[in-house]
Amino acid sequence: MAAALPHPFDPLGPEEISRASRIVRPHFGGQDPNFRVVTLLEPSKKQMIPYLEKEHHKQPVGQVPTRYARVEVVVKGSGNENQLFELIVDLDNDKVARKQHVKGKHSYIDADYMKAVEAACLANEEVQAEIRTLDLPAGATVVVEPWAYATDGMNDMTDRVTMCWFYLRLLESPDANYYAYPLDVCAEVSEALKVTKVYRLPTKPHERINNEKKPFDRRRIHSTAASEYHPQLRPNPRTTTKPYQVVQPEGPSFHIQGNDVKWEKWSFRVGFNYREGLTLHDIRYDGRSLFYRLSLAEMFVPYGDPRAPYPRKAAFDLGNDGAGINANNLQLGCDCLGTIKYFDAYHNTPAGDPLKLPNVVCCHEQDDGILWKHTNFRTQTPVVTRSRILILQTIITVSNYEYIFAWHFCQDASIFYEVRATGILSTVPSDIDIKEKIPYGTVVAPGVLAPYHQHLFSLRIDPAIDGQSNSLVVEESKALPVDNPAVHNPFGVGYTTESQIIEEEGGFDLDFTKNRTFKFVNENKTNPITGTPVGFKLMPFYSQMLLSHPDSYHAKRSEYCEHAVWVTHYEDNDHFPAGRYTMQSLGGDGVASAIANRRGTGTAKSVRDQDIVIWHTFGSTHNPRIEDWPVMPNEKLMVGLKPVNFFSGNPSLDVAVSTQDKNKSVLYTGEETKTAACCPSRL
Amino acid sequence: MAAALPHPFDPLGPEEISRASRIVRPHFGGQDPNFRVVTLLEPSKKQMIPYLEKEHHKQPVGQVPTRYARVEVVVKGSGNENQLFELIVDLDNDKVARKQHVKGKHSYIDADYMKAVEAACLANEEVQAEIRTLDLPAGATVVVEPWAYATDGMNDMTDRVTMCWFYLRLLESPDANYYAYPLDVCAEVSEALKVTKVYRLPTKPHERINNEKKPFDRRRIHSTAASEYHPQLRPNPRTTTKPYQVVQPEGPSFHIQGNDVKWEKWSFRVGFNYREGLTLHDIRYDGRSLFYRLSLAEMFVPYGDPRAPYPRKAAFDLGNDGAGINANNLQLGCDCLGTIKYFDAYHNTPAGDPLKLPNVVCCHEQDDGILWKHTNFRTQTPVVTRSRILILQTIITVSNYEYIFAWHFCQDASIFYEVRATGILSTVPSDIDIKEKIPYGTVVAPGVLAPYHQHLFSLRIDPAIDGQSNSLVVEESKALPVDNPAVHNPFGVGYTTESQIIEEEGGFDLDFTKNRTFKFVNENKTNPITGTPVGFKLMPFYSQMLLSHPDSYHAKRSEYCEHAVWVTHYEDNDHFPAGRYTMQSLGGDGVASAIANRRGTGTAKSVRDQDIVIWHTFGSTHNPRIEDWPVMPNEKLMVGLKPVNFFSGNPSLDVAVSTQDKNKSVLYTGEETKTAACCPSRL
Repeated sequence: MAAALPHPFDPLGPEEISRASRIVRPHFGGQDPNFRVVTLLEPSKKQMIPYLEKEHHKQPVGQVPTRYARVEVVVKGSGNENQLFELIVDLDNDKVARKQHVKGKHSYIDADYMKAVEAACLANEEVQAEIRTLDLPAGATVVVEPWAYATDGMNDMTDRVTMCWFYLRLLESPDANYYAYPLDVCAEVSEALKVTKVYRLPTKPHERINNEKKPFDRRRIHSTAASEYHPQLRPNPRTTTKPYQVVQPEGPSFHIQGNDVKWEKWSFRVGFNYREGLTLHDIRYDGRSLFYRLSLAEMFVPYGDPRAPYPRKAAFDLGNDGAGINANNLQLGCDCLGTIKYFDAYHNTPAGDPLKLPNVVCCHEQDDGILWKHTNFRTQTPVVTRSRILILQTIITVSNYEYIFAWHFCQDASIFYEVRATGILSTVPSDIDIKEKIPYGTVVAPGVLAPYHQHLFSLRIDPAIDGQSNSLVVEESKALPVDNPAVHNPFGVGYTTESQIIEEEGGFDLDFTKNRTFKFVNENKTNPITGTPVGFKLMPFYSQMLLSHPDSYHAKRSEYCEHAVWVTHYEDNDHFPAGRYTMQSLGGDGVASAIANRRGTGTAKSVRDQDIVIWHTFGSTHNPRIEDWPVMPNEKLMVGLKPVNFFSGNPSLDVAVSTQDKNKSVLYTGEETKTAACCPSRL
Repeated sequence: MAAALPHPFDPLGPEEISRASRIVRPHFGGQDPNFRVVTLLEPSKKQMIPYLEKEHHKQPVGQVPTRYARVEVVVKGSGNENQLFELIVDLDNDKVARKQHVKGKHSYIDADYMKAVEAACLANEEVQAEIRTLDLPAGATVVVEPWAYATDGMNDMTDRVTMCWFYLRLLESPDANYYAYPLDVCAEVSEALKVTKVYRLPTKPHERINNEKKPFDRRRIHSTAASEYHPQLRPNPRTTTKPYQVVQPEGPSFHIQGNDVKWEKWSFRVGFNYREGLTLHDIRYDGRSLFYRLSLAEMFVPYGDPRAPYPRKAAFDLGNDGAGINANNLQLGCDCLGTIKYFDAYHNTPAGDPLKLPNVVCCHEQDDGILWKHTNFRTQTPVVTRSRILILQTIITVSNYEYIFAWHFCQDASIFYEVRATGILSTVPSDIDIKEKIPYGTVVAPGVLAPYHQHLFSLRIDPAIDGQSNSLVVEESKALPVDNPAVHNPFGVGYTTESQIIEEEGGFDLDFTKNRTFKFVNENKTNPITGTPVGFKLMPFYSQMLLSHPDSYHAKRSEYCEHAVWVTHYEDNDHFPAGRYTMQSLGGDGVASAIANRRGTGTAKSVRDQDIVIWHTFGSTHNPRIEDWPVMPNEKLMVGLKPVNFFSGNPSLDVAVSTQDKNKSVLYTGEETKTAACCPSRL
């Protein structure tokens, strides 16, 4: 398929990445910049709305928005210090449109740099001396796991600091689970790759810093069956699970051309960037606009152990690590079943060359049980339809953890966003008796503490409910009073709903006890049957918000974690609820500050009947169970978006009834099986 | 398979039902009793515990508990009034062990009686006169839908009253959706099948009783495409959904003999009764006891429209209707995919003969996406396992609504209980302008109001966590203080958990803002690694509790709807959180009264380290969307039970890795598809 021009929402292709780098290179006086980011600067919505209207009406689109790249590079300053620059590159006119030195901020984690940190740390004599005091078992390998430093106010805030945690790999296999043997050594490494501090970690409940040079306790060594997850390092797996295959004899129901996906009345475009990973654009059902853009915008993982240096464990897995750059290369037949379409993405090398990220998104259908059913009890006639869903899945690995992100599109015009947390717990050493307890974690193996922590996600929802002018409505279900003579409620059973239309930007909390419901409506479009504005509603995931104190750096840096629902006025490229540069950030860059700033400067806009964005904060307070060890069975979190009086009836009413003729199920009659006919022939 | 004796948990077989009836019949002096219930009286737990211990240790079980039937009959009293009797029948010794005249209570809905009510209503001259005033379209059929009367204090409470709602079937087909044409006529029918009242329903927002004799408004007649769900009455269905089949070439992974189910380290027994429907017994994982019994215990569906007579719409779908007796005959290839085992059940006819309820439970496996995954970022080796789940599903039709109940067993030793609400909304007539609003419902079609209502379920959980002596623990995650010098929290980021062990029976509320977690633990069994009691936790479904005023009959009759979690001391046959006889009940029979009574009489037992039962109330405040019309896309509600420091690690760690060799997925490469090899060979 000879795709002419890229669609404005298409990520940069390899040729565009090369071109952007070529345009940028001469702007640094002969120095070879370290290209951290070469990504699409998404076109302005102002340009895109008329473009999309014409596109959907199959009219000539006219002027195509200029193709811009957003580029981040790091170069050396006069004192050999790292300087971060951000450039906007006009790819249509081969020029740098803007170049900005971003002072006091750091780019996301640099894998090459982290490898250099590991090497520098292990080459350091003080580190080696400390390791010698551990008197490790012969043949064991020390593994250094560098972590971005979470600001705690103890270090100079302008230079990058890396925390190095130490683990032991007891087995020879490089796939052995070294998280099973956390060591009580810690090192700090400076931006210039100098080891600035080496010390021992606390291993007792109330310890501050532990500088007792205790050797590695051999009693911690335990059976591989309890700590290894890799099949080559474990006893034989269970053989009771029989094969299960999904067969689609006529192929899938989706139609995909480039990044354009069409399936069961749905249409949308797939996007991808190094930070958010998968993004979805221009989501429509049956031709009607629902959402301009959907994406995961941030994730914060603060640990709850107050003992220094653990307060430095607090990761922004999007801002610091990048959901795109850490996306797995998905494997046919392993990560999904059925007929699978894979999407590749492109990132860039430090030299600015395109770097292919193969199979980072998979798209497939799934049967999701019964969609709707009714049996007329008078005629005993059942009518049943099965629910088919379309899943776009991406999986990221962030050191020890995995996250599985999946958008589910449903035939009834609802959308669900599912997060599954899996992978390995981040562990720290402990040295307590079975009767003692470190109140900040769970002992999952001898000497291994899995500390309490939270995962707090920000889902960015840019609604376009029958157009861009939308309002956020907060609705509650309330009992009618029994003591108000003006209200007719003689039996005390009446209830109704009360709605408030939000006028100003702000953050809101969930309250299931009031059936509090957040709706995005278009006040200009009235449903002709219900007489109410057309809308969608958020089906939130009820979660505890950030536990850190509001004055802590954790709280200041992760502003979106204060409330479950935020509404802001739409601004182009406003994708960062905890700020664009989260690496060692100091706070004040997030959604709450932005709102407060706009209020303070008198630039706040109304959010009623305006182009608005909704941010849903959800997650889990993850106090580990031993069942999460040594690899976590997935923990599911689910958020939904459902039409509320948007259509004129059940959008899936026309789904064909479910029949054995097509489904070919098999009847179990004991240990042998056979097919049988079924389903009333009158259907 | 020549099964000798039934297992003590097996429901009564057809021969046992006949025998019980035969034993009962002579006890009513020649009168032919109307047999409402002939069901198993489950054996006492005191007898079952040693029985199960021996059974699981493959020892001779010794004395088998006596087989008892619980029988409800209705006979005519001296004044021709209905009298309800409950009998306990000793089937091993062919005798009635107990016979009790249950005064002032009614048995569940009697289908034959309801048909008689319909007929009596339609034969009544006053009803026919009222219908004539409607001036209905030629060829239309009036349909009478009788509903059990929900107590509102307006009628004599000893006699049964039936509310008759009227609908119109405009099309000839008996499968036409008459709920699309609710009529504004209402009738009340007495126990003796006399029509006692005929009147018009309110159709305006603030109307009391409407006795204006308005004819049927022809403007309400709308296109069948908007109100019919039956495929023969609708335009052609969508053809875009391609077939999707589940193939299990080596058969299913389950092994089922009679009611004994074994699958992937799980074992349990399937039970079934007319009221609760599917029940599960003696649930174990890897031989360890987890739950003695799991069941849905009640469901209450109160409507929120305060206008008389609508406060009489409040259904106990288990107590009044019966989840067992209303269970669908499931169809191969329609209600599930893959290899399916069906379970039949037996109820009884009014004459006391066995009545087969075929295929009321289906059991099948499903792929549930990724179970766990980790990619070692140093070696780039992914290890991924897929999650297989075992589903036991039963579907009930209660007049207009359908409920799909499914237990999900997971390889990681968690259990989920999923409810899907589907079917057709209960509708009432409305006569308002598009700009008006009746604040108690949603207009879903011209002249059709779908009133606000709630669905409140009670899930009964009888834990047996490594034994019968369990405790309920309420745990919360709390930030450490920053201003207490005795607490080390220098950076304000520390948090820990606080637990309270519940000592007394009572009701509790959910609070996600505190990460409040309800655990069932065995304080006598300490996990050897974590050092904490072994346990499971409830993953609740966050829902608004009952909106009716505490003094209303709705609240008094549905006591469990006040709190989300209840704990009581175990008592045999205590399965009724809103009372055993809910039909036209007056209240005071539920879980709250039982607790209060025991406290009042000094017979309350501690619930700490005791045989306890947990009741979880959950549901939805269902303010209909037009998208729920004319048949509802399913609304999912999910409750979970997960091990917490029960095992010594991830129970699904030994699940074999996922491979294309077994999964045989297909790569999509445009409109043609082909299979491709995959997955690193080193796995």
